[in-house]
Amino acid sequence: MGHRAGRDDRISTHVGLTARQWGADEVVYSGEEDSNMIESQEDIIERWGGDMEIRYTEEWKKEIRDFEGLKVHLTMYGLEINEEMKEIKKEFESSDDILIIVGAEKVPRWVYTHVDYNISVGNQPHSEIAALAVFMDRLNDGEMKKDFSDADIKVDPSEDRKITEEL
Amino acid sequence: MGHRAGRDDRISTHVGLTARQWGADEVVYSGEEDSNMIESQEDIIERWGGDMEIRYTEEWKKEIRDFEGLKVHLTMYGLEINEEMKEIKKEFESSDDILIIVGAEKVPRWVYTHVDYNISVGNQPHSEIAALAVFMDRLNDGEMKKDFSDADIKVDPSEDRKITEEL
Repeated sequence: MGHRAGRDDRISTHVGLTARQWGADEVVYSGEEDSNMIESQEDIIERWGGDMEIRYTEEWKKEIRDFEGLKVHLTMYGLEINEEMKEIKKEFESSDDILIIVGAEKVPRWVYTHVDYNISVGNQPHSEIAALAVFMDRLNDGEMKKDFSDADIKVDPSEDRKITEEL
Repeated sequence: MGHRAGRDDRISTHVGLTARQWGADEVVYSGEEDSNMIESQEDIIERWGGDMEIRYTEEWKKEIRDFEGLKVHLTMYGLEINEEMKEIKKEFESSDDILIIVGAEKVPRWVYTHVDYNISVGNQPHSEIAALAVFMDRLNDGEMKKDFSDADIKVDPSEDRKITEEL
């Protein structure tokens, strides 16, 4: 939420890459419309594979309201992840889907009152990228997505160098 | 490593905040010297507490070479965190200190060969902030730093609103 073209390009791209890494199906941006930022992520997906969708919406309230599944907003003001994660995981298992919301500093109060949980990954000035990564990592018991369909390239994990393989 | 003034301000600030959240004693930046970025983080620490030091170094090779303790470089090309974490945690316990290195895309080969581990948090195009957060979260068994000395302000965790307390 609250993407600002130019200023937030790299932060928003990191949010998208993080979501992809832990297996998100879709990333939805709101704030300023920014087709450059979205296209640069689509280029990465094109090359590295997977079928994560990326899109922009102006109607973020509708997006949140209409979402069927668990809705979690990550914010430094929320309840502590270590207290709430057990319950969230249980609800996630019985729900079919989860919407995870991260935003810039000024997320409107409306969001806080229209989600199932406001969760903090540390009640300190924080990085929404770090919060998203740790939340998704714990939600998935430390398992990252491994198979990205139709990739043109992949990494061969190495002890001490960069090795990639064209596919 | 490889901070670029202007372009990387927000990314580098997120790296610092993430390190602080999981209890780093010190954050050292290399790349372009950027006192604005460092000062803005010092302002956050001044207000939110804690005694994490932030500084710049031009001599990143010396920094890495002279560090006494475990040296881990987080990179998408490294060995998988899920395979290596158990061993790293064991070594961390017997070592007194750990240096965690993250950088922009073009981290020099020298780094890969002068650390104890090159570790990937997902062998995919990744966010160094996400990698740092997840690595530190796992290293600390999910415990974040709670007590920040001399804070002027703190959050009272809330279900549905922003509550802060001046101290």
